[in-house]
Amino acid sequence: MKATLITIGDEILIGQIVDTNSAFIAQKLNEIGIEIHEILSVHDCKAHILKALHQAEQQSDIVITTGGLGPTKDDITKQTFCTFFNDHLVLSEDVLKHIEQLFKKYIDTPISDLNRQQAMVPSQCKLLHNAHGTAPGMWFEKNGKVFISLPGVPYEMKALLTESVIPGLSNFFERPHIIHQTVLTAGLGESAIAERIADWEDALPTHIKLAYLPNLGKVRLRLSGKGSDPMQLQSEIDEQVARLLKLIPDIFVGFEGKDSLEINIARILTGNDQTLSVAESCTGGQLAATFTKHPGASVYFKGGLVAYQTVIKTSVLGVDQSLIDKYSVVSEEVAAQMAEKCRKLFKTDYAISTTGNAGPTRGDSNAEVGTVCIGLATPEAVYTQRFLFGKNRERVVGKAVNKSLEWLLKEISKK
Amino acid sequence: MKATLITIGDEILIGQIVDTNSAFIAQKLNEIGIEIHEILSVHDCKAHILKALHQAEQQSDIVITTGGLGPTKDDITKQTFCTFFNDHLVLSEDVLKHIEQLFKKYIDTPISDLNRQQAMVPSQCKLLHNAHGTAPGMWFEKNGKVFISLPGVPYEMKALLTESVIPGLSNFFERPHIIHQTVLTAGLGESAIAERIADWEDALPTHIKLAYLPNLGKVRLRLSGKGSDPMQLQSEIDEQVARLLKLIPDIFVGFEGKDSLEINIARILTGNDQTLSVAESCTGGQLAATFTKHPGASVYFKGGLVAYQTVIKTSVLGVDQSLIDKYSVVSEEVAAQMAEKCRKLFKTDYAISTTGNAGPTRGDSNAEVGTVCIGLATPEAVYTQRFLFGKNRERVVGKAVNKSLEWLLKEISKK
Repeated sequence: MKATLITIGDEILIGQIVDTNSAFIAQKLNEIGIEIHEILSVHDCKAHILKALHQAEQQSDIVITTGGLGPTKDDITKQTFCTFFNDHLVLSEDVLKHIEQLFKKYIDTPISDLNRQQAMVPSQCKLLHNAHGTAPGMWFEKNGKVFISLPGVPYEMKALLTESVIPGLSNFFERPHIIHQTVLTAGLGESAIAERIADWEDALPTHIKLAYLPNLGKVRLRLSGKGSDPMQLQSEIDEQVARLLKLIPDIFVGFEGKDSLEINIARILTGNDQTLSVAESCTGGQLAATFTKHPGASVYFKGGLVAYQTVIKTSVLGVDQSLIDKYSVVSEEVAAQMAEKCRKLFKTDYAISTTGNAGPTRGDSNAEVGTVCIGLATPEAVYTQRFLFGKNRERVVGKAVNKSLEWLLKEISKK
Repeated sequence: MKATLITIGDEILIGQIVDTNSAFIAQKLNEIGIEIHEILSVHDCKAHILKALHQAEQQSDIVITTGGLGPTKDDITKQTFCTFFNDHLVLSEDVLKHIEQLFKKYIDTPISDLNRQQAMVPSQCKLLHNAHGTAPGMWFEKNGKVFISLPGVPYEMKALLTESVIPGLSNFFERPHIIHQTVLTAGLGESAIAERIADWEDALPTHIKLAYLPNLGKVRLRLSGKGSDPMQLQSEIDEQVARLLKLIPDIFVGFEGKDSLEINIARILTGNDQTLSVAESCTGGQLAATFTKHPGASVYFKGGLVAYQTVIKTSVLGVDQSLIDKYSVVSEEVAAQMAEKCRKLFKTDYAISTTGNAGPTRGDSNAEVGTVCIGLATPEAVYTQRFLFGKNRERVVGKAVNKSLEWLLKEISKK
């Protein structure tokens, strides 16, 4: 069972939009055993879309397009599907009513003719209700194959996919079984891990594949198995994972989907009834944002201070000016006091601090670009570490956040 | 002049990685007048990659692949290029020396056989030096067409593309001219804008196209022109943009690349020698992170408080408990005091506060999920607004951040 994904839109081909939809769709289809054969991005051009549809029809059982369903002139997906299926547009009263309701509740501009045109749909398709937007999804069938058109707005597409497309495809097709399990690691590079687990990897059966996915100091190891008996496949994968974990106990973080550095931290601190705060300089709010993006974070995460200018470190946080004068603002000494003062200010069990120079130029300190000092205050003591994270601003901050999480998780896992 | 981009890697087709590389490459190629014909993602599978290379060769002048150059067993791009070009691998002493140096400086594990194998490269290709990683880029030529293989790690790919590929292609090909100009707007929806500018859009010449790119309360309007005379094309686009701006003075933010809500805020505040701080509850650090991701933010952005638990709003920020009891923590009254106290605590000219319920469940307040109150303290007064941003946690936070920026920019632009 194979699917081709086609994303439609000039904005992707000129690089103005990153295509995040395909990854989401691929994930969800994989979970129900449908493999993605290809992902293709094409222009808002009728001939090009038609060619892509014909080619996709030949190589796969399912074709899913995203994009080109908006109310404006550059949106031509509906007309193109009409040509492909030799169909025409008709008015859907249900869709029109829904559009009117959405405008009433959320949008303070009156409904326009363009919006009304979104209620015109191909006569042959089954409509998929889009609760969050004005463009409905469309489901076509032809010679036992399924063609689906979804809007390109990510959260509309996600809701439609989860609520309509996945259940629909699960009913429509008999499927083989694909199981992925991804092991999260932190603290060791890709090739060092590969070297360490080489014998295990070489001995993997042919229907189980391994992939390495490195990112900012974290490496994910993905096992993918394919088989006809899901119970047996799962137990084979479980067995391989158990063997793998014996080789990497020191860098093992958890399993993707269930775990992440910050989810594990949340679980342990919440379980221990303990709390956390952060005092950020070079990470500028990103460490706090990493915790707070997950619902329920307020149970253990009390808050944070973004002490971006040096003066805030002294005036709000209470770091000694003399310490900064003596060791410079990017120093383990200052990181230590930031963590300690933060822990007291927020009255938490743990506190993390970051101070560094993310670049591109040297700031209030003479520290080399890429230098980051991290402080960790615990109920027992304050620890610090100094790192050199390279020259790229975004990566320096990303690595500082990941290293902070990795270190805190190690510390609270000890007990 | 057309290019096809091929991203290689199972991780993309099972949705574990979002392909951000293609957007970056497309942008850079467009800037030098090379159009992207298609973007294709294929499996780590030799037959599939070969098929994609052959098809790309037929439909374009330039083929760029990313991915599959790592040190591990799932990386097969080099071997596949050897098959495609009927070539074989040879050792590059330069690459080997570079790998040894990288390991010495950044990585505390010894160099392995796997790393050494990365110095084996196809004999026919010109190597592109990868300063940031162990896998070099590769440049092949065949019948006047160029084939380029780049590593999949985004920052390695970006450096190689900017420093080697773009200059190389600029030399190799005569190119037509493509100019994009993107107008940033905030505060009005896609279809309301389309309605308002319909006459202007209808009158656009055929070689200038318009696209609408909406995202979280902001809409970007992209004009793309193509022509043989770059000077004339630019002046045509300038003229069209000038006409467009007369129609949307109230929602115009600036131009992409040069402007954004936060870049404009930075420019105005820095120019006025004024400062900013933030007190965030529901946005949890993301507002601070939006400012601090740009170098030089410390000139005007003094810092922020993430007052995530209600107790931090009273203990660290000094909000009155009685106010919270009376109006609830998600209220315009509390937002106002948060902004006011923040402005005083950080001693800044302006302060923004956010308090809301991003969901998925109601928290310390009974406010409907999606409710966000934003406070804005200026040297003259404190203002508040209350919004309903829908039910999706990520989008509620994103819209709260964008609305805060939009409002602050409007306020400081008045003077």
